[in-house]
Amino acid sequence: MHFRSQKNKSNISAMQLPSSTLSQAVEALSTLPGVGKRSALRFALHLLKQPANEVLQLSESIRKLATDIHYCHICHSISDEDTCPICASPKRVQSIICVVENIQDVMAIENTQQYRGLYHVLGGVISPIDGIGIRDLNIESLLKRVQQGYPSPVEEVILALPTTMEGDTTNFYLNRQLQPMGVKVTTIARGIAIGDNLEYADEITLGRSIVHRVPFAE
Amino acid sequence: MHFRSQKNKSNISAMQLPSSTLSQAVEALSTLPGVGKRSALRFALHLLKQPANEVLQLSESIRKLATDIHYCHICHSISDEDTCPICASPKRVQSIICVVENIQDVMAIENTQQYRGLYHVLGGVISPIDGIGIRDLNIESLLKRVQQGYPSPVEEVILALPTTMEGDTTNFYLNRQLQPMGVKVTTIARGIAIGDNLEYADEITLGRSIVHRVPFAE
Repeated sequence: MHFRSQKNKSNISAMQLPSSTLSQAVEALSTLPGVGKRSALRFALHLLKQPANEVLQLSESIRKLATDIHYCHICHSISDEDTCPICASPKRVQSIICVVENIQDVMAIENTQQYRGLYHVLGGVISPIDGIGIRDLNIESLLKRVQQGYPSPVEEVILALPTTMEGDTTNFYLNRQLQPMGVKVTTIARGIAIGDNLEYADEITLGRSIVHRVPFAE
Repeated sequence: MHFRSQKNKSNISAMQLPSSTLSQAVEALSTLPGVGKRSALRFALHLLKQPANEVLQLSESIRKLATDIHYCHICHSISDEDTCPICASPKRVQSIICVVENIQDVMAIENTQQYRGLYHVLGGVISPIDGIGIRDLNIESLLKRVQQGYPSPVEEVILALPTTMEGDTTNFYLNRQLQPMGVKVTTIARGIAIGDNLEYADEITLGRSIVHRVPFAE
């Protein structure tokens, strides 16, 4: 008798679950990003051991993501209200708009506590390969904000899109639309991250950080 | 000006989420095993992009884990009915019970398609350090199954508990209880896994696999 076993950790997709309730939960949980059948099963079995009210709370909070989430009608960030707390705040500089790809970027910039203007969430970047065009993004409402000064006059638009082909294409398109409106268009600084060694930086970043050098500040 | 930054990927726990619905979902999702705040946020933002009916389906399937799961009254495995499909099957050998720690173990053994007897899920192993004693486990019902031949006479009990201090303690206790009842008590074979090299095996496993060698089968 001779085997050459594959030694894979048991074929979970072929594994028969003893309960349809469990297998439905595993099926649904495995749609989460980066969660396979095995992790989904681990999540489900973990939930089985938790008090019912905690499981119901998780279920309820997920349901609310489908039913209770609103998007700000000005900047398209998520919000509990029709207008998000940032757009509604009198403490924010209303004349500067930072254009970002998605909500995570808003949160990342907010987290720095260095920016006091407003945002505009595009909901993606122009990507012909993925079939994402100008109409699929919140571009029209951005141009309207600048052109009509809605809800307040705009002096500067900061482009904070990713440095990818798609991000650059989107930057290029937005700049072409915005410049004629007489608004100042800027992009966030790219350079060597604080704490990083020059020798390990990629050439493009290092090159740009030299070209765009700034006055030394003590 | 001189920084020595910590370069951690932004402090998510301090990150303010723009919606209480979102932050509640992140809070709830981060209770899943191995899921931190960052992954929970990724899950929540992913769900925001999905069609509402898919999100509701996930919510519903999690709710059912709290409300619709039954445990087999004989072997304590999970089941949609009062008696699980294995205990209810006339094709299974009713006189052999395999004792396992948890439901995952039932699924792993079923997956081998090598076992045709019944199971008994203890729901853990004796662990004084974690405060898990005999009364916290499904031991009494196991002894009742063997002693009273309920629901059918038992000839053999296979102990398939983990090879840990706690597993051994539980094996020892169960054996002491079961032997006087005149039932055959066995444990699953331990040895070198198929495909593994002897040189990398731990000494205890290798030693046991020599002591418990079996007749050569062509």
